[in-house]
Amino acid sequence: MTRVLVTGGSGFIGRQVLPALAASGADVHVSSRAARQSSAGVTWHRADILDPRHLNALVNDVRPEILLHLAWFATPPDYWRSPVNVRWAAASLELAQTLVAAGGRRLVGVGTCAEYQWSGSSLCVENATPIRPATLYGGCKAAVWSALEPFAREASVEAAWARLFFVYGPNEPANRLVPSLVTAMRAGNRGHCRTARHVRDFLHVADAGSAIAALTMSGVTGPVNIGSGQPVEVGTLATGIAERVGRPELLTMEDGPQTDAFVVANVDRLRTEVGWRPRFSLDDGLDDAVRWWSAVNSQLPTPNSQLGFSEATG
Amino acid sequence: MTRVLVTGGSGFIGRQVLPALAASGADVHVSSRAARQSSAGVTWHRADILDPRHLNALVNDVRPEILLHLAWFATPPDYWRSPVNVRWAAASLELAQTLVAAGGRRLVGVGTCAEYQWSGSSLCVENATPIRPATLYGGCKAAVWSALEPFAREASVEAAWARLFFVYGPNEPANRLVPSLVTAMRAGNRGHCRTARHVRDFLHVADAGSAIAALTMSGVTGPVNIGSGQPVEVGTLATGIAERVGRPELLTMEDGPQTDAFVVANVDRLRTEVGWRPRFSLDDGLDDAVRWWSAVNSQLPTPNSQLGFSEATG
Repeated sequence: MTRVLVTGGSGFIGRQVLPALAASGADVHVSSRAARQSSAGVTWHRADILDPRHLNALVNDVRPEILLHLAWFATPPDYWRSPVNVRWAAASLELAQTLVAAGGRRLVGVGTCAEYQWSGSSLCVENATPIRPATLYGGCKAAVWSALEPFAREASVEAAWARLFFVYGPNEPANRLVPSLVTAMRAGNRGHCRTARHVRDFLHVADAGSAIAALTMSGVTGPVNIGSGQPVEVGTLATGIAERVGRPELLTMEDGPQTDAFVVANVDRLRTEVGWRPRFSLDDGLDDAVRWWSAVNSQLPTPNSQLGFSEATG
Repeated sequence: MTRVLVTGGSGFIGRQVLPALAASGADVHVSSRAARQSSAGVTWHRADILDPRHLNALVNDVRPEILLHLAWFATPPDYWRSPVNVRWAAASLELAQTLVAAGGRRLVGVGTCAEYQWSGSSLCVENATPIRPATLYGGCKAAVWSALEPFAREASVEAAWARLFFVYGPNEPANRLVPSLVTAMRAGNRGHCRTARHVRDFLHVADAGSAIAALTMSGVTGPVNIGSGQPVEVGTLATGIAERVGRPELLTMEDGPQTDAFVVANVDRLRTEVGWRPRFSLDDGLDDAVRWWSAVNSQLPTPNSQLGFSEATG
């Protein structure tokens, strides 16, 4: 059994990755700042990986063959601009060095479409589209891969970098696009989409989790876009949500700025080299997400004000 | 007086920066792992900035307005591929955060022409030539700037990034091109230039030091190439050295590979925005370098074997 250490396994993406990894037969070990109950195939370890002593003890205790590093500061919308990104970039580099020193053979990190230059209307292609992040989050993710790729080459270990596009679904932070539209319109409030004509690549989080797990267990190296490969207008997504909630009259939309109008993944590497296919179409994914958020909302007090929201991203 | 904290002030470049900074009227503070005697305008502090406790104590003791971060692992040829680069990248990000937390207002770091994609025969232009480092050293330097630029923007501090091209002169590591040619031919051994047709941007280290000092004390932000802007064939440089040593018959040359054939700085930002001009022409610089290395060699035992050498770089 291949031993895999996962950081960030309790997050929005991470909780979908764990069952997919366990299902693929990996011996999955997960770090968490809180104590958690282990289950079949998934062993939890209590550690704060921002603390070098914890990090060293964890890696030398688990001795993983593979590290899947998902942990990062990810609270929207703060994560775009928070200085904590720099701390996570530095910690991620420490983690990579610690893994290699402990005999690990493969590093898998998680990047973002926000590393790419967002201009024009071409698909984002790994190793071809310019890396020109416009945000602190994108800059710090790009920083990690800039150091990690040649570090792995010189250390003769494998390194892969999963660039997430726009992920939605269960457990998404509630102030992002999909949950906030569901919640607002179900409460009878206006749902407003600010970037209706922007084209994005949306992927259901269960698919994002299984794609990352597949990449982790593969021998594929280098950056790999994690997306659907399907260009979808944000307005189309919003309309699909409004229809599923049954309140299309509550949806208002504006086109959005001319900039950043098209961010869609070329998924050739994911499809061909990793050999992965999504399970959810956009329709199936929205069915699932609206159902999940509706169930969550039924258990919550009805919001009495319109929620702000931000775009969903990885 | 503007208080400037300098890391790496005892290195090949750093020792040229310090007098230039002091001459510009700065209150210069320098960190060093060894104890050193302070002098007029330059105060030394003993600290190992790879140790977070030292780093914090140093920055909070000095409370600089400006940080000039020169320190890095720089032993040729190992620095191109050493995993220690990753440690310095992480430490540099910690340093930036520490400066800002202590109220600093300007960060100046040192990058390299090895961050750029080396292809074609165009000058390297900041913010235009693609960043595509081929080495671990270049990847780690690019990583620092990728995180530092947006970090500074969000923190409302200034950040500048000095990209060094090919620096030569006094105190250069002895196994690099200029010193190894001088030393070999003065000892009557063959001096061999492996990349005679490669075109590079050479700058005397005193000019590199004064350019970095000028950038540090300016308000210019963003990446700034530090070079002469003059395309020079490596073979021309080697020939100039052989003639100055008086042993042109000892010089042998080969063209070098077709790849990486042209690496020259566009220096518009340095000339126009920083307002800096070099003091040394190539002829004057080679006069000085050959004189300096000849004096050093006269005080050393004569080498009895041909030295290996690598290209000079920042």
